[in-house]
Amino acid sequence: MKCRICGEKASVNMREHKLALCKEHYLEWVPAQTERSIKKYGLFKHDEKVLVAVSGGKDSLSLWDILKRLGYQVDGLYICLGIDEGIKYSVESQRLAEKFAFEHDLKLQVVDIQKEYGESIPQITRETHRGRIKPCSVCGLVKRHIMNRIARDNGYDVLATGHNLDDEAAVLFGNTLSWSGEYLLRQGPLLPSSLGLARKVKPVCRIYEREMLAYALLRGIEYIYEECPFSIGSTSIYYKELLNRLENNRPGAKLSFYLSFLEARKGGLFSEREKIQAELHSCSRCAQPTSAPGLCSFCRMMERINPISVDENEK
Amino acid sequence: MKCRICGEKASVNMREHKLALCKEHYLEWVPAQTERSIKKYGLFKHDEKVLVAVSGGKDSLSLWDILKRLGYQVDGLYICLGIDEGIKYSVESQRLAEKFAFEHDLKLQVVDIQKEYGESIPQITRETHRGRIKPCSVCGLVKRHIMNRIARDNGYDVLATGHNLDDEAAVLFGNTLSWSGEYLLRQGPLLPSSLGLARKVKPVCRIYEREMLAYALLRGIEYIYEECPFSIGSTSIYYKELLNRLENNRPGAKLSFYLSFLEARKGGLFSEREKIQAELHSCSRCAQPTSAPGLCSFCRMMERINPISVDENEK
Repeated sequence: MKCRICGEKASVNMREHKLALCKEHYLEWVPAQTERSIKKYGLFKHDEKVLVAVSGGKDSLSLWDILKRLGYQVDGLYICLGIDEGIKYSVESQRLAEKFAFEHDLKLQVVDIQKEYGESIPQITRETHRGRIKPCSVCGLVKRHIMNRIARDNGYDVLATGHNLDDEAAVLFGNTLSWSGEYLLRQGPLLPSSLGLARKVKPVCRIYEREMLAYALLRGIEYIYEECPFSIGSTSIYYKELLNRLENNRPGAKLSFYLSFLEARKGGLFSEREKIQAELHSCSRCAQPTSAPGLCSFCRMMERINPISVDENEK
Repeated sequence: MKCRICGEKASVNMREHKLALCKEHYLEWVPAQTERSIKKYGLFKHDEKVLVAVSGGKDSLSLWDILKRLGYQVDGLYICLGIDEGIKYSVESQRLAEKFAFEHDLKLQVVDIQKEYGESIPQITRETHRGRIKPCSVCGLVKRHIMNRIARDNGYDVLATGHNLDDEAAVLFGNTLSWSGEYLLRQGPLLPSSLGLARKVKPVCRIYEREMLAYALLRGIEYIYEECPFSIGSTSIYYKELLNRLENNRPGAKLSFYLSFLEARKGGLFSEREKIQAELHSCSRCAQPTSAPGLCSFCRMMERINPISVDENEK
């Protein structure tokens, strides 16, 4: 198999795009694809300040690398979740995020949730009903809250996450199984800013997980191999497996599913009524948006665990 | 496992409904569920004439049996497709449809497409581009045309088909993968009559395939076991396998996917705009509805194969 651009030996063959590329041209192709998405969906401009949420995994570190290579102003945010029972998942992923930042001369902000809120993710999940049933839901809630807070308090215009196509297709699949209008209308590469929060973007949402992996490997990015121990057996991993079966049978099916959804929505498939229902309020404690008046889900959860520390952190 | 109603030994255990029933109560439960769907979706009333499309398979014969037991006025239509290369698929399914009609004192109309149009399905598929690529598409086109014609010419109010939940969920899954607005807006238990055509209904659309199978077996209905030889490797069978994996992991997932779609659509999830785009015309030869002015797809296809016989049959 030869590189379509230079005819040298190909390093990566993408059946989904009927495209094979050598290492050099692959490492140009991924940023070019990312830039295309940034332009197509109007994610951000060169004069805006971007904060990348970095987990230490292949997707977020590669995204950070790509955005820097594309010349954007981009800092990192690492949230230490304290998931260190069994394997040292958080310790190791923080080390890798810091190493990447140091080696590339990038600014990384670290928030340690145990230090700030008195509890690690494993502790919160054990102490809450939500956490015992769905640990990933608690973790998502905490991460969203902190990302929003740091972006707002430090004047970032945009918050970028490393969600790849496989992530997005799995979420879309889940939202479709339940036909959740509210989620179907919100999911996408761009969530506009609202109530003082930074805009949220997913610049690599059109890039397959294995394409992101190949990028990290060929760029020599050192990332954490392990999946989060809490994610084992999660619904999203199950949906990914189902979609992989579809993809194996028909290369490109996952991309087509996601892109045709975005196209159909843009073309007016959905009624706009649903949008009105999703009107947001401002949390009475942290001022972040919430679907009902009063405290947001994060503040409600933290109040039950540790009423004082939340107040102190938010002031 | 015991019957929930009478406590006798259960014959059928439905994990999807958390319900086990003995033979006697299962054979009451399936018609009761069908009647619920008929009422809920307003499919038809007792004073309307129903035509059931009967293939000789478990679903359509069971549907015919159920509707008769529920006291509806219901005749059958068997379309002989001439699929008799290798196994005698059409010969055998016609024999079983006729046997069922005879034993239950029901009226069955038989249309033999080779006699009426000069060509069997295997011949048409070989002679057309569409057929060589997608034989099931040609067969569906021919069957729809004939069902519409017979229902219209013989004064039936309603045309009923034996599509079960697995069929409907697979079609919905396919329409969702491509986010086809036109199909998403039309798919459902009821397609209202238009341009003089009978209303189309799917009374067993909420009943799982294996529930229909259990009904046929427990009722002693003799049906054709073989799948149509053309359907092997078809997309719909592939989608069914994927959905079965989902169902095995979470009993009820398939039903929830289909019902939440119907609920969301009823609740206004989709924009009505798409409906306007799907405006229909009347075919200049057969007068059946078609998406563009001129000949419908069926008449276009048959004209290429055999220009004269179509005219003769339609007059």
